[in-house]
Amino acid sequence: MSDRLARVTLLRLAEPGDTVMGRLVASYGPEAAVGQIRERALDPEFTRWFVSSHRRSPAGSQDGQPAARLARMLASWSARLETADAARDLAEGEWGGARLVIPGDPEWPTQLDDLGDSRPHALWLHGEADLRFSCLRSVAVVGSRAATPYGTHIAAEFGAGLGERNWCVVSGGAYGVDGAAHRGALAGETATVAVLACGTDVAYPSAHHQLFAAVRSQGVLVSECPMGAHPTRLRFLVRNRVIAALSRGTVVIEAAVRSGALNTAKHAIALNRHLAAVPGPVTSENSAGCHRLIRQGTATCVTAPEEMIELVGAMGADLAAEPRGPVLPRDQLDPETRRVLEAMPARIGVGPATIAVDAGVDLETVLSCLGGLAAAGYVERGSRGWRLRPEHP
Amino acid sequence: MSDRLARVTLLRLAEPGDTVMGRLVASYGPEAAVGQIRERALDPEFTRWFVSSHRRSPAGSQDGQPAARLARMLASWSARLETADAARDLAEGEWGGARLVIPGDPEWPTQLDDLGDSRPHALWLHGEADLRFSCLRSVAVVGSRAATPYGTHIAAEFGAGLGERNWCVVSGGAYGVDGAAHRGALAGETATVAVLACGTDVAYPSAHHQLFAAVRSQGVLVSECPMGAHPTRLRFLVRNRVIAALSRGTVVIEAAVRSGALNTAKHAIALNRHLAAVPGPVTSENSAGCHRLIRQGTATCVTAPEEMIELVGAMGADLAAEPRGPVLPRDQLDPETRRVLEAMPARIGVGPATIAVDAGVDLETVLSCLGGLAAAGYVERGSRGWRLRPEHP
Repeated sequence: MSDRLARVTLLRLAEPGDTVMGRLVASYGPEAAVGQIRERALDPEFTRWFVSSHRRSPAGSQDGQPAARLARMLASWSARLETADAARDLAEGEWGGARLVIPGDPEWPTQLDDLGDSRPHALWLHGEADLRFSCLRSVAVVGSRAATPYGTHIAAEFGAGLGERNWCVVSGGAYGVDGAAHRGALAGETATVAVLACGTDVAYPSAHHQLFAAVRSQGVLVSECPMGAHPTRLRFLVRNRVIAALSRGTVVIEAAVRSGALNTAKHAIALNRHLAAVPGPVTSENSAGCHRLIRQGTATCVTAPEEMIELVGAMGADLAAEPRGPVLPRDQLDPETRRVLEAMPARIGVGPATIAVDAGVDLETVLSCLGGLAAAGYVERGSRGWRLRPEHP
Repeated sequence: MSDRLARVTLLRLAEPGDTVMGRLVASYGPEAAVGQIRERALDPEFTRWFVSSHRRSPAGSQDGQPAARLARMLASWSARLETADAARDLAEGEWGGARLVIPGDPEWPTQLDDLGDSRPHALWLHGEADLRFSCLRSVAVVGSRAATPYGTHIAAEFGAGLGERNWCVVSGGAYGVDGAAHRGALAGETATVAVLACGTDVAYPSAHHQLFAAVRSQGVLVSECPMGAHPTRLRFLVRNRVIAALSRGTVVIEAAVRSGALNTAKHAIALNRHLAAVPGPVTSENSAGCHRLIRQGTATCVTAPEEMIELVGAMGADLAAEPRGPVLPRDQLDPETRRVLEAMPARIGVGPATIAVDAGVDLETVLSCLGGLAAAGYVERGSRGWRLRPEHP
């Protein structure tokens, strides 16, 4: 059995993100790991490691003794092995247009190695774009499925703005923020990556089938689930770690305090990736999760795609422009003229001597400043003296 | 001339916030300072200090040599002294219902001493509330005059929420955020403090005369300008330092990137007061100033009055509740039952053996979990096997 076939088998045996299986594969390689499961006999060394590292975990008390737990895991893997057929899986996937990439392949995104024992055994890809190349400059855009119009608007703006600047959008293909971010990216020419919690052929949610078709032609669909696998809540959650790991940083567009997007945010932090959140109205529950991340200092506050790129981009090379108001002509006046202008009354005109006292400058200065200010349209001489012009610059 | 009369005179001689006058008064006391101005002869020691401390300042080159600048200041103070009449000012103010407080008075808020040389010489107060007592637990609520409906809504919420918890709102009585914050506070029974950039009798803007009347009866109007003084741009700016200094912290509700509220924010930071900002839609220019403060780490992100009180309140005593979503019944299931639930298909029913494989647990566990899940309304037995109930908890 080849390394490739062994990894296809592994996709069937364990749920994505199973770190015990991950450790087994990391220790013995995929072929030997499958062999041990087929023999229903794990290496005693591995069993010793498992027992000693899980002895004091509080979860151990719920699920029984570590040795018994490991035996039950092995039984569950073996049960799945009986129905697994790697050669058929591989043929079916490739027949459907997908391709399998495994660690060591040129298209394997090596940043996934940061996931350690929860690194995917392999990935099914379906689409024109090269995953590894696309994710070199990529940002995960995540958020609420039940997004508000504000959230989908901002997600689309971020998708388009990142794409315009050649940054790839990684997201989950779901309703709400995910879909809007992909669509925003697809409006340009940059690739977008949708990481699914089901087989790439299942493409859930089905109402997004046109979106997924567009992603296949301009980007790539990604899944660590075998063909035909349907999404479960667990798969959604563990899928999020792949979204976070693929990209240089994650931005949460809209998230209630119990949103799945916050799970992706946690993975981003755990992986030492940048985390940002977009603020919104404090009256919106869908922004409460974002505000909490910002308040806690866990996420940086970003308000535009440029600011997100500044965060994840090369130091000094991808700086966002500082938001500035217009430069008022007033700013260009010299300090004394400004003091005279600021001392001018708005309605009732006054004489130069009063202005001199109010501005704290001498009369000669006032007279010379008034001439310039009048010429520039700031002040005018009314019936009772000098005053501001109602429509001054 | 008494200390009190000398300070009333000083309010006429220099613009609020004039730090050179402030230093003169701090060095010689108000009576001697007025005396030196009357004699048009400053103490040579003071002149030496001014010249040596302004010699290398870049502003010196614009306004001429330091000695000449000081002479011009003195000339401007003396010119104003000719028309000043402290006894009349005091009588007029008191006749109008206002009261003068000076440093050392029981009602003088000693936190203003943090302003150093720009500390007001005296304050005119008009209203029922005791200024010093009110400001012991106070928050400055500031923001755009041209606020959006979102901004005025949040300002009123903060005003009311702070008042309910016995925190006094300090603001500037202007249109927009200021007015809404005062009105929110007035809806309760706590005092509110309006610091004006004009005489308390002028009460600008005049369309707020009813608001100012309400502040007088439930709070207090504050000004360092003499009676009859009209507002100027400079007075608005220096007034902001008093708002920041009176309160324990400042919250910016809405501010464009060139808003006067950011000037108050700068004062709050310079005075080591807490600074917070409320986020808003990133599509709103009126929130861009707030977001910049949060992004730079200058301001804490706050979304509710409780969070502001947590920031300025006593450590550990005024904690805001952490925003939380509802606890789902799902959270209370034991881990194995949850895994079974998460492996359940949504539409097509499946047999317990399939569920066991999908969940990675053994058949017996599945059977016992399914009974409990069905009883709790999570799952049901369809024609083809077990599945999630469409309306499960």
